[in-house]
Amino acid sequence: MSAAPDTARAAAVRRLGQLRASIDNIDAALVHMLAERFRCTQDVGLLKAEHGLPPADPAREKEQIARLRRLADEANLDPDFAEKFLNFIIREVIRHHEMIARGNGGRTVGAGIAEPAAAAAERHNEDQSGE
Amino acid sequence: MSAAPDTARAAAVRRLGQLRASIDNIDAALVHMLAERFRCTQDVGLLKAEHGLPPADPAREKEQIARLRRLADEANLDPDFAEKFLNFIIREVIRHHEMIARGNGGRTVGAGIAEPAAAAAERHNEDQSGE
Repeated sequence: MSAAPDTARAAAVRRLGQLRASIDNIDAALVHMLAERFRCTQDVGLLKAEHGLPPADPAREKEQIARLRRLADEANLDPDFAEKFLNFIIREVIRHHEMIARGNGGRTVGAGIAEPAAAAAERHNEDQSGE
Repeated sequence: MSAAPDTARAAAVRRLGQLRASIDNIDAALVHMLAERFRCTQDVGLLKAEHGLPPADPAREKEQIARLRRLADEANLDPDFAEKFLNFIIREVIRHHEMIARGNGGRTVGAGIAEPAAAAAERHNEDQSGE
């Protein structure tokens, strides 16, 4: 009789371990997805700078937000959180663009970017689209 | 001759479209990974509350941060950003736990959570582990 709560607690601890393993897997996936996303936005920043493409694209950004909110809704994730998340990422993209502009590429923002590209990126560092 | 810059620009615009398609795919993956992560942390919150498990686990959290920084480093993502990202998620997990505690589950935080679980979650709403 007295063993029952302990057994239930032991089962809960096991289940907690399983959930934590899932969370760890998901976090690893998130980190790698984010790394890949920043590779893409870095390319976008350089491409726009090199070819004189408009740094910001309000229509694209509006579409991105609407799409992300819709996807979140379908996945039962708070759409407001999804939008906050996108803004969080965009702030980091802007920080990367600013680092490129300062020629201080370093990690994830393209160490060894050619100077002309960095200078061009600087002219475009008002890009707040986050792509 | 004069067509060359236009051709280069057209190629750049095409490449921009490809990068944006990749970013959109990645964002969809991120939203779904986040939705799944919140399903897990919601289960963790309820499990801890129901079984009187300690809400916070500093050792686990320290390990999570160290692991995420290591994974980020390997993926050429700024480890400081990875840590900021984890903290961003943790703030949302805490918000969810607070919503559970208020019995205001709603979306992503388990509408229809049994009242005793919600009350137990309230007693544990100091859980800041974010799991």
